[in-house]
Amino acid sequence: MDLTMFEKMQQLPLFQGMTRFEMSEIIERVKLNFCQNKAGEIFAEQGERCDRLIYVLRGKFTAEYLHAEDKYSMTEVMDGPSLIEPYNIYGLNQEYSRTYKFVTDGSTFVIDKLAFKNFLMNYDIVKANMLNIICTRCQNISKRLWLSNNGDIESKILKFLKIHSLQPNGEKRLKIKMEDLARLMGESRINVSRALNAMQDRGIAELKRKEIIIFDIEKATEGI
Amino acid sequence: MDLTMFEKMQQLPLFQGMTRFEMSEIIERVKLNFCQNKAGEIFAEQGERCDRLIYVLRGKFTAEYLHAEDKYSMTEVMDGPSLIEPYNIYGLNQEYSRTYKFVTDGSTFVIDKLAFKNFLMNYDIVKANMLNIICTRCQNISKRLWLSNNGDIESKILKFLKIHSLQPNGEKRLKIKMEDLARLMGESRINVSRALNAMQDRGIAELKRKEIIIFDIEKATEGI
Repeated sequence: MDLTMFEKMQQLPLFQGMTRFEMSEIIERVKLNFCQNKAGEIFAEQGERCDRLIYVLRGKFTAEYLHAEDKYSMTEVMDGPSLIEPYNIYGLNQEYSRTYKFVTDGSTFVIDKLAFKNFLMNYDIVKANMLNIICTRCQNISKRLWLSNNGDIESKILKFLKIHSLQPNGEKRLKIKMEDLARLMGESRINVSRALNAMQDRGIAELKRKEIIIFDIEKATEGI
Repeated sequence: MDLTMFEKMQQLPLFQGMTRFEMSEIIERVKLNFCQNKAGEIFAEQGERCDRLIYVLRGKFTAEYLHAEDKYSMTEVMDGPSLIEPYNIYGLNQEYSRTYKFVTDGSTFVIDKLAFKNFLMNYDIVKANMLNIICTRCQNISKRLWLSNNGDIESKILKFLKIHSLQPNGEKRLKIKMEDLARLMGESRINVSRALNAMQDRGIAELKRKEIIIFDIEKATEGI
């Protein structure tokens, strides 16, 4: 077995704590689809059936959520290694919640849901890791539900991004018309515009036509 | 084995699909603590370590969430059968998120986390049921994060309750000072007070000192 592959797999949360023997067994017995991915490639789509676990091993990618009704989309820039939506391969609504697309070249490995269910989940360590990953996700988003959404407009916008993020740091982009954002925040268009310009002046945001880019949400929300 | 017990267990989501043989095996081998509970008894507390699965078999109980920082508490009135916070026995923050208290006499059975982990989770059906329960919870609360919180004051208040509820129907109570609620809603005290009185006039809410009772959140939010 390739040493680098073993070491790579051991870094992934789902396999953490596994012995080298168990890892070889998995590689021999489960069909793992290793893929090289090109920049621009979409590897999962919002609304598509989530019938596989995708591990992004390497590469920069975006996760985009489209809110059709409220007319906006939110995009996060993320880096591998990252496990894509393990909490959506079971349960009532087995759909990817976002569209994932490579920004750079990258690599993934993909585990079919059936192989995961029938083989991987028999390992106590995978079972425990999986339950810990899903429960932690559940706990994190439950806490977010209780965050109050008051304060000034700037902190409302930042909290909005934070509440809807997959990861708590990195670049976030909001594609939205100014009047739609104002409506969502319950504020006037002119006040929202002022707050965004102040954020741009302080270097935490960049304003483009119908798009707001926050360079690092963690830095931007320090002290909020 | 008592037939009623077998039938009772088969109704509980975690054991659904189990054979009578498997069920007997569980009852013989796992320490299940069957309890009779008195009205007024608190059987789990917010912040307490979640190291056991509690099944409320019978009885009316309340689930109360206290938000210390924002100075309010939200209480739901619930009925057994109900499994208490299975998504908090694994993961990073293994704590009950609410305080649970019997309103009527009731009965529960309690499974120790270790027994669950080491014995019950070896049944494929329990494993699948558990993953489905936790993932469904994850999916439900993820969706709520994307609900917009705009609209008139009445729908803001109702959505607030809906977003923070464990179950989508039944009675919800909010213990809060009018000025704190106004602050949370981003509205003036007088407008919030007017909206609440209109809800009381229509018979969907009852206002008490520092407390708002919504009799049935599902009915009240019809068409929102």
